[in-house]
Amino acid sequence: MSERLRNWGVSIGTQPTGRLNAITDVPGVRVGHAEVVFGEGRCAPGQGPARTGVTAIWPADGHLFDSKVAAAVHVINGFGKTTGLMQLAELGSIETPILITNTLNVGRCFDALVDYLAFYAKWDFVSINPIVMECNDSFLNDILGRHVHAEHVRKALDQATTENAAEGNVGAGTGMSCYHFKGGMGTASRKLEIAGSTFHLGSLVCANMGRMEDLRIDGVPVGRELAKHPDDAPEQGSIIMLLATDAPLDSRQLARLAKRATHGLARTGTYSGSGSGDVVVAWSASHRIPRQSEAPYVEGPRWLDTHLEPLFRAAADTTEEAILNALWAAEPMTGRDGNSRPAIPKPRVRGIMRRAGYAFREGEDA
Amino acid sequence: MSERLRNWGVSIGTQPTGRLNAITDVPGVRVGHAEVVFGEGRCAPGQGPARTGVTAIWPADGHLFDSKVAAAVHVINGFGKTTGLMQLAELGSIETPILITNTLNVGRCFDALVDYLAFYAKWDFVSINPIVMECNDSFLNDILGRHVHAEHVRKALDQATTENAAEGNVGAGTGMSCYHFKGGMGTASRKLEIAGSTFHLGSLVCANMGRMEDLRIDGVPVGRELAKHPDDAPEQGSIIMLLATDAPLDSRQLARLAKRATHGLARTGTYSGSGSGDVVVAWSASHRIPRQSEAPYVEGPRWLDTHLEPLFRAAADTTEEAILNALWAAEPMTGRDGNSRPAIPKPRVRGIMRRAGYAFREGEDA
Amino acid sequence: MSERLRNWGVSIGTQPTGRLNAITDVPGVRVGHAEVVFGEGRCAPGQGPARTGVTAIWPADGHLFDSKVAAAVHVINGFGKTTGLMQLAELGSIETPILITNTLNVGRCFDALVDYLAFYAKWDFVSINPIVMECNDSFLNDILGRHVHAEHVRKALDQATTENAAEGNVGAGTGMSCYHFKGGMGTASRKLEIAGSTFHLGSLVCANMGRMEDLRIDGVPVGRELAKHPDDAPEQGSIIMLLATDAPLDSRQLARLAKRATHGLARTGTYSGSGSGDVVVAWSASHRIPRQSEAPYVEGPRWLDTHLEPLFRAAADTTEEAILNALWAAEPMTGRDGNSRPAIPKPRVRGIMRRAGYAFREGEDA
Amino acid sequence: MSERLRNWGVSIGTQPTGRLNAITDVPGVRVGHAEVVFGEGRCAPGQGPARTGVTAIWPADGHLFDSKVAAAVHVINGFGKTTGLMQLAELGSIETPILITNTLNVGRCFDALVDYLAFYAKWDFVSINPIVMECNDSFLNDILGRHVHAEHVRKALDQATTENAAEGNVGAGTGMSCYHFKGGMGTASRKLEIAGSTFHLGSLVCANMGRMEDLRIDGVPVGRELAKHPDDAPEQGSIIMLLATDAPLDSRQLARLAKRATHGLARTGTYSGSGSGDVVVAWSASHRIPRQSEAPYVEGPRWLDTHLEPLFRAAADTTEEAILNALWAAEPMTGRDGNSRPAIPKPRVRGIMRRAGYAFREGEDA
Repeated sequence: MSERLRNWGVSIGTQPTGRLNAITDVPGVRVGHAEVVFGEGRCAPGQGPARTGVTAIWPADGHLFDSKVAAAVHVINGFGKTTGLMQLAELGSIETPILITNTLNVGRCFDALVDYLAFYAKWDFVSINPIVMECNDSFLNDILGRHVHAEHVRKALDQATTENAAEGNVGAGTGMSCYHFKGGMGTASRKLEIAGSTFHLGSLVCANMGRMEDLRIDGVPVGRELAKHPDDAPEQGSIIMLLATDAPLDSRQLARLAKRATHGLARTGTYSGSGSGDVVVAWSASHRIPRQSEAPYVEGPRWLDTHLEPLFRAAADTTEEAILNALWAAEPMTGRDGNSRPAIPKPRVRGIMRRAGYAFREGEDA
Repeated sequence: MSERLRNWGVSIGTQPTGRLNAITDVPGVRVGHAEVVFGEGRCAPGQGPARTGVTAIWPADGHLFDSKVAAAVHVINGFGKTTGLMQLAELGSIETPILITNTLNVGRCFDALVDYLAFYAKWDFVSINPIVMECNDSFLNDILGRHVHAEHVRKALDQATTENAAEGNVGAGTGMSCYHFKGGMGTASRKLEIAGSTFHLGSLVCANMGRMEDLRIDGVPVGRELAKHPDDAPEQGSIIMLLATDAPLDSRQLARLAKRATHGLARTGTYSGSGSGDVVVAWSASHRIPRQSEAPYVEGPRWLDTHLEPLFRAAADTTEEAILNALWAAEPMTGRDGNSRPAIPKPRVRGIMRRAGYAFREGEDA
Repeated sequence: MSERLRNWGVSIGTQPTGRLNAITDVPGVRVGHAEVVFGEGRCAPGQGPARTGVTAIWPADGHLFDSKVAAAVHVINGFGKTTGLMQLAELGSIETPILITNTLNVGRCFDALVDYLAFYAKWDFVSINPIVMECNDSFLNDILGRHVHAEHVRKALDQATTENAAEGNVGAGTGMSCYHFKGGMGTASRKLEIAGSTFHLGSLVCANMGRMEDLRIDGVPVGRELAKHPDDAPEQGSIIMLLATDAPLDSRQLARLAKRATHGLARTGTYSGSGSGDVVVAWSASHRIPRQSEAPYVEGPRWLDTHLEPLFRAAADTTEEAILNALWAAEPMTGRDGNSRPAIPKPRVRGIMRRAGYAFREGEDA
Repeated sequence: MSERLRNWGVSIGTQPTGRLNAITDVPGVRVGHAEVVFGEGRCAPGQGPARTGVTAIWPADGHLFDSKVAAAVHVINGFGKTTGLMQLAELGSIETPILITNTLNVGRCFDALVDYLAFYAKWDFVSINPIVMECNDSFLNDILGRHVHAEHVRKALDQATTENAAEGNVGAGTGMSCYHFKGGMGTASRKLEIAGSTFHLGSLVCANMGRMEDLRIDGVPVGRELAKHPDDAPEQGSIIMLLATDAPLDSRQLARLAKRATHGLARTGTYSGSGSGDVVVAWSASHRIPRQSEAPYVEGPRWLDTHLEPLFRAAADTTEEAILNALWAAEPMTGRDGNSRPAIPKPRVRGIMRRAGYAFREGEDA
């Protein structure tokens, strides 16, 4: 596995992480990635170079259409193309896996997901609400080519596992940029003791936003020093943020939780530019909603807002850490028309952070 | 009790009513009214004439601050002055009685409610969220005089009962106008059998909106004929709509329910003018939320959206019927500067509706 | 052209219509339809029978991506699958044609629209926000087959004209049902004199909602009589409502306008069931927003909310009339598995409305 | 004037400040404060000790009711009591001064503002929309006493000036706490060159939120070190954030702007606890809306979203700086029942920041 911020010597917040420090620490959550990478040089729409992919998230185990999960969405900045969020907000639930891909590939992923669920998984429906979200990887990728096809969607869905903490240039993160460095997928989690019980909260981001000069790591304004020669390309970024928990929150509470991802995002330095599609989807893997029922209600736990605080803190902290993990894991990449993104220069960052008072252990310098 | 639409010969929808056909059919809901009426002739701000009042609604029994009710708000047209709705939406709950009064009296009612709860009811708090809503009765009332004082608020709160189906010129409805006739308070309810259990849904409105030519009664465009000489005064109306149920809906579901009051409102003919403050608050009297708890959650019923249909229908139907009940109960009134509002002319309306095919029983003609 | 409600003898409201009584009366608006109809009998997913289509709406003339139109969305009931609405709400603008199709075809239409705009219209972009909306035609159509392909999207886009008032079984309306009758596309418009200037407001609906017993025509509850033997099939409907105007409203005002479509919808009898995706998109064809500009602002008209009233009234009235026009134009259809929808029985309706006092001219009875 | 963060040696962001580095740098904006401070020792509700006040903000010059300003609201966390925000959101405008006070005093301030505008300023209305917002100062103040009366409101309104950069324990800030230190009012501004023209953006906050251990100053986690013995009192905080600009943004754009206050708030360390009422109101002092007009529109500038970036950055930066300015200006205070809040310990903070790499000039150490 690639290096992560925490192993490198910086921890975000004080709550303990889950086992993998990944969204899959929330029981039932599975994540899978598929990449589409081919070609070099000049972009010929439809022929590449391709630097893209798709990430599939199963928000809980079992048959999601028959047993949905409670969910909510919070739009920080709606410059993005999505499907499924309107119904998610209305019914407060998710009934399919979630796909993340590139901007112009949303239609094909919607269609591939319908195909997969109807003809491969053999779910029985004439109406279903696919959740597809995106960031724009056109700096490195032939985005007009829409290179993510049904086979990649199937691969990401099929290979999704509960042990997946892959980060950086994987899945939808393949061609993404973050703070003008190579970005991509990142994840983190927290393990929370609340009134004697254990709950988890995990975050997964597709990080593709920000300008170098704004980057902060645990508050340290490293971007000011790194961006000696700022790239003046206009930001056409985005960040998709997912929050999963096994605390049985309802949709309204999950919407409150989702808002706190903003705080974690903001701490990494961005102010969410006008052209950045910054969207949060949150769900509870332990609050299931049957598709059909004779009885008008089911019995179950109702979380109290008075006990949301540790979850709010975890939502901010894991979002911040997941974004930084994306930067830490991402490998440098050259894509279409020779455009390239470097990895974040960890030794320089270490130097800056040392001067800001961070004491790294001996031998930690890369 | 004053005449009601249903006794007069017109029923809205097909679901059966509750015992009183009033919001107080929902167990625990209490309603009280206080009126302030004095003076005649020319308006002297602060000295009357006063044609106003306050209505108090206890949304459930017991200590609301310690055991809140689940609630939601839907704003159809936000040209209105309210307190409490922001927190209601955030936390999905109500923790005080609800007051309805005139526009400029909102501040004094907020203050009177704090007084009542802190020093009279002796609830223990340093922060509380009073819900105060309003319509504008300035056509008949010296509204700048803000004649509703703490004593009236206390009276409305203290005299609130579960048997109250008073309508028309009572409480906040005292000086209100509706479709250019005398308007005011109206109420209705439905008794619903859902999967073998009985639930109630009740509506209470303070009806102060609409232009005569638009009025429809059970779809019949009576306003077109009644408004031979339309009053050209600009609409400065509003309607406050409350929906209560004992079905254990959560806040998101109550927000969905609240939206259906729009359908009932629209059926009475108005298109919700730009200057009309049309606001719906809905709550479940059987979904209680403890203020404090060691455990992070409580066990309880979770309603399924698949079983909302009969409640949606009842929300539309009771809102429509409550508005018409307000018109049916309201007595004509003359107020400030000699302004006056007639009662709806029931014999003429009966004639119009007969021609539209309504068969009234013998002897029903007024 | 098929029969329309107004020619049949019933007019909604009192404002005059535009020339065609269609959304295309708003200068610049073009509408095109393409149908996919083949096969009979038993449904074999992917092989038909197909009873579906796509409708394309160009919201204004010129290059929409370079010169966007101000827009807003109002979600009455979000049980629907859409793309593009999040960004529309954030930026208050539309930058592509709008497509309406069937539920599961949203992905393919998103993709076809990207193809059309990038490679056929040769617009230059790496990010664009396709607006695709839908209703569910699975009662008549092999919806899992997703039979609307790029060629149909191109046809609807290419053949769109400013003279198009086609209604009923056209485009996306091909397989739709409304109040248990055959439904589909409907349109209407109003011509408004406001302070000495002329403005237009037009409505276009894809009507696929409602239960027969609830149907009202200009307030007359015809459904009560028509639905002697109600079809008990669960509602899986939806209605997409579009409102266009050449009054230069901004996005906030268009959102206010969009809300009034609810009033027109409600007057046709439905209370917007839980499973109905009822969505309104409104735009101003005369408020253009340049994609790029050196100057931070452009000079232009700013509409005043005090002058919204006639537009609000027109939004409600045209929505109501467009829905009824859809019923009036729709031809009966038999589709998959022998399922069929009759046309609304106009002679019976005429009889009911006569008894409700409507005086039709001699010889008008069908 | 009290010390400010910037003079002390720390600047937030890189954009230049306005002349006073205060919200009053936006032409037309006036700010006034009134304090109510009396009594010591044990709290006797109604008799003190009082540690409270009111702040009045005139959002623009002239007669606001006749010539309103474009405005928007963003609710980060709606645990707060406000009046006026519903109509502000609906009409996108503000028509009165804004008052900030303590939680339970909202009713009296609403009433006092009506009094002031109707009988003292002699504005002519029968309906008006007072904007009153609040934080909870009950840790230091006899909040049940509601000690802010009409005389204090009048004083704050009358003494409001364009030269006011008072901060800390003034007006509504008198009894507020922030990160467990003494908090209160803070302000900041930026002067922006956009395409050759100069615009201003100013922020004013009433800062009453946060837990000590979370406090960050320009990213430096000083709270971790300061909070050796954290105060375990539950957070009952809030922050009211105002953003004013003379760029002619419309309401939708101001709502986008308001969201960026979240980023500035988050950078100071809080994650917006469940009990914190975090609300942002933004307006443009140069986008005026006439109350009455024969013409349906006025000509004027329409800002383009493509040029919002520098304003977004300024919104985040000024909010962050205003919060820190509140901490820097606030004097220690002892209030009811002997409760006290210390000022932030600047020498210790300086030491921490030195170790984080901040180079202060000689002689700057306090």
